Amino acid sequence: MNRLVFAAAAAISLGTALPAAAQFQKPEDAIKYRKSAMTVMANHFGRIGAMVNGRVPFDAATVQANAEVVATLSKLPFTGFIDGTSTGDTKAKPEIWTEPAKFKAAQTKMQDEVVKLNAAAKTGNLDQIKAAFGETGKSCKACHDAYWKE
Amino acid sequence: MNRLVFAAAAAISLGTALPAAAQFQKPEDAIKYRKSAMTVMANHFGRIGAMVNGRVPFDAATVQANAEVVATLSKLPFTGFIDGTSTGDTKAKPEIWTEPAKFKAAQTKMQDEVVKLNAAAKTGNLDQIKAAFGETGKSCKACHDAYWKE
Repeated sequence: MNRLVFAAAAAISLGTALPAAAQFQKPEDAIKYRKSAMTVMANHFGRIGAMVNGRVPFDAATVQANAEVVATLSKLPFTGFIDGTSTGDTKAKPEIWTEPAKFKAAQTKMQDEVVKLNAAAKTGNLDQIKAAFGETGKSCKACHDAYWKE
Repeated sequence: MNRLVFAAAAAISLGTALPAAAQFQKPEDAIKYRKSAMTVMANHFGRIGAMVNGRVPFDAATVQANAEVVATLSKLPFTGFIDGTSTGDTKAKPEIWTEPAKFKAAQTKMQDEVVKLNAAAKTGNLDQIKAAFGETGKSCKACHDAYWKE
């Protein structure tokens, strides 16, 4: 209980409205949460990809709706990478915890690209969407290559 | 490929911007997706609950941010309950597929309560948030009791 209160207070003092550690009772809860958020994000990113790659007919409203979901989800998984969650049912590499500034930069890069993807989606212009989708995908891959054992 | 295109076309003709079946290559992908969306939703709903129940100090901005996430997530899991996904790594009860209208009503009830929770969160009034949180929780429980083997 004290730990919960402390973590929440710390998160608030850091100015974030989505405190992290306070919300995970056990390390495995944090792992499950971050994996789940990644799964949902990847799915909706993939739905855009299906249209970008021509596997599904392009529909601007569908791309917009999925880009909105991706934008929301892009902010979530990283609160789950708390201390004590480098082992267990996870493919996270230990570098996440040994080079936190680099990991944070990779995270921010992805989130920035997702903001651009979301903006491109709102234009309804397939060429712009394709370009932003490609850049976003690169940022996903760069982070996965560096920090994910696949 | 043809099945993908057909499913996407069918989804568009139904007027939804988030087509479902088109996006799952395998039944287990749909199961993993819906479980992941539920996990993320439950986590953020729980973060509101921690404040409603006094386990964590109340902070209106935190409640608002989490209610927004819950609102986005509340629309997602149900696209994963496609035909052929009643078995496998799932606790879904077969009634989901034998009484689809009732299942849909339970889903809609939850989504409606989440809209109210999100509106209450925006007021910043803890009493309103508590009331809406309680009603939302009831709608979660009713659907879980009916359609989830726990």
